[in-house]
Amino acid sequence: MIVKRLVILGVGLIGGSLALAVRKTGVCQQVVGWGRSPGTLQRALDLQVVDAIEPNLAAAVRGADMVVVAIPPGAMQGMFQELAKYLAPDAIVTDVGSTKGSVVAAARMAFTTELAHFVPGHPIAGKENSGVEAADADLFQRKRVILTPIPETNPEALRRVRALWECCGAEVSEMEVEHHDTVLAATSHLPHLLAFTLVDALAHMDDSWEIFRYAAGGFRDFTRIASSDPVMWRDICLANRTELLTVLGRYNEGLTQVAAAIAAGDGTRLQAVFDHARKAREHFLQLEVTVQAPKNTSNRCF
Amino acid sequence: MIVKRLVILGVGLIGGSLALAVRKTGVCQQVVGWGRSPGTLQRALDLQVVDAIEPNLAAAVRGADMVVVAIPPGAMQGMFQELAKYLAPDAIVTDVGSTKGSVVAAARMAFTTELAHFVPGHPIAGKENSGVEAADADLFQRKRVILTPIPETNPEALRRVRALWECCGAEVSEMEVEHHDTVLAATSHLPHLLAFTLVDALAHMDDSWEIFRYAAGGFRDFTRIASSDPVMWRDICLANRTELLTVLGRYNEGLTQVAAAIAAGDGTRLQAVFDHARKAREHFLQLEVTVQAPKNTSNRCF
Repeated sequence: MIVKRLVILGVGLIGGSLALAVRKTGVCQQVVGWGRSPGTLQRALDLQVVDAIEPNLAAAVRGADMVVVAIPPGAMQGMFQELAKYLAPDAIVTDVGSTKGSVVAAARMAFTTELAHFVPGHPIAGKENSGVEAADADLFQRKRVILTPIPETNPEALRRVRALWECCGAEVSEMEVEHHDTVLAATSHLPHLLAFTLVDALAHMDDSWEIFRYAAGGFRDFTRIASSDPVMWRDICLANRTELLTVLGRYNEGLTQVAAAIAAGDGTRLQAVFDHARKAREHFLQLEVTVQAPKNTSNRCF
Repeated sequence: MIVKRLVILGVGLIGGSLALAVRKTGVCQQVVGWGRSPGTLQRALDLQVVDAIEPNLAAAVRGADMVVVAIPPGAMQGMFQELAKYLAPDAIVTDVGSTKGSVVAAARMAFTTELAHFVPGHPIAGKENSGVEAADADLFQRKRVILTPIPETNPEALRRVRALWECCGAEVSEMEVEHHDTVLAATSHLPHLLAFTLVDALAHMDDSWEIFRYAAGGFRDFTRIASSDPVMWRDICLANRTELLTVLGRYNEGLTQVAAAIAAGDGTRLQAVFDHARKAREHFLQLEVTVQAPKNTSNRCF
């Protein structure tokens, strides 16, 4: 047992699931939840997601040896600035934000002198439902977690954050901050944007009721991510706007070309695109299968 | 038992599933499969999907009282023209095409004198996998089937096609041809086009391997329909091109607006779109729940 006091700031789906997963392993002496909403915080305690709650930030982080910031990306900068006032110098800080460039920039603004104990992180896991009620001890099992250490990051701090996630069943990898944001813009941020936009556009059509009535399973799957938290996704889209707009531009070029092929009745061109997409997806599904169970699943991982 | 000889032209996922479902109910005396590929046809027999196979079209439809055309939309016109030579005047013809305007136009070209027994249809059911191996007797259970009768359609022919689908567990509704094509362009054809285009665009990026490697469950769901049959979807996109390009235009307007909101850092606008989409999807999911089990599930439905 190495983490004595693990403090989770923001006990929603991700923060709550991490608390449950960590408590199951027994690697932390105490898991404390903090949040801005007293109601949510109380529910986290009632649902036995955390060992204790503390609505006062200064009191919450006092004595913490690791702090996990699990709040929407848009609130990250303000949080870091508050945290900088209260944190012990050797306390490790990590986060779960879906964009890393913006989080690192916010950390550099706030933690002006001490960045050695800051380990940016991103668990690639989620659910259609959000909130502490949806928290799940197995959410990170066999899921990828990307850590994006910065030059200042202390290797021991990095090792401990990695170990925390591995205890939760995740496969941890490391990546450059910029690379993370490019990859996630393509496979996560853009698809969310497209799904939200499609459902919004159809809902504005005259016969939207009729349209949705005849939607089948394919539409339900395609639009599942449009049920995600609007505030969080607003923040993510703005935080990673440069990478997102770049990949959206690439996508729009493709869309313009298929639209032209349809208008011209160019079946050959259309089929080539569809064929290539189908093969690429098959290849991608094979990659997924190769995600191995993590080596460390006992509480000896620290 | 009213259908003595039900002939299914094209024994793939849809044709094969219909054969299995109908045979389970016992409402047809004989279900005969026809197809261009001798191998597929033989597999349909080996897998006991049909009672009999007949590789010769003239022989297959001889004595048929109902013929179901379950081939890709692009092959429909040629098939109707061949069929017109062999069909008995009172044989009912229906189809399972995803676009109805193009199918009706093809039928009008081919069946110049006799359209009373033509009942255009579209079962809204599918699977990620295609082919006779994926055929499933329960594929149409609680799924919607849309029939789009034309002015010439005989009410008795319509009643019998409706009864066939209801026997398979489907909920059957009727719709105008044009309305069908508008509704399906929005909820099926456009999402397929967007999914194919996204996967193709990402697969062309320099680090596509890395991109797909870090894709999570949301991406897998969003792109599931990009694993659909490229030839069938090429045909559908071309057959329903007018409606598809219209709804794509609406979608592109929405996408231009959200891109502008992101570029301008307009979080309020972005959140309004995301909120509206999420609420619309919740509403749509509630509609889905109201699909009731069909009234007729015994073989008395004829």
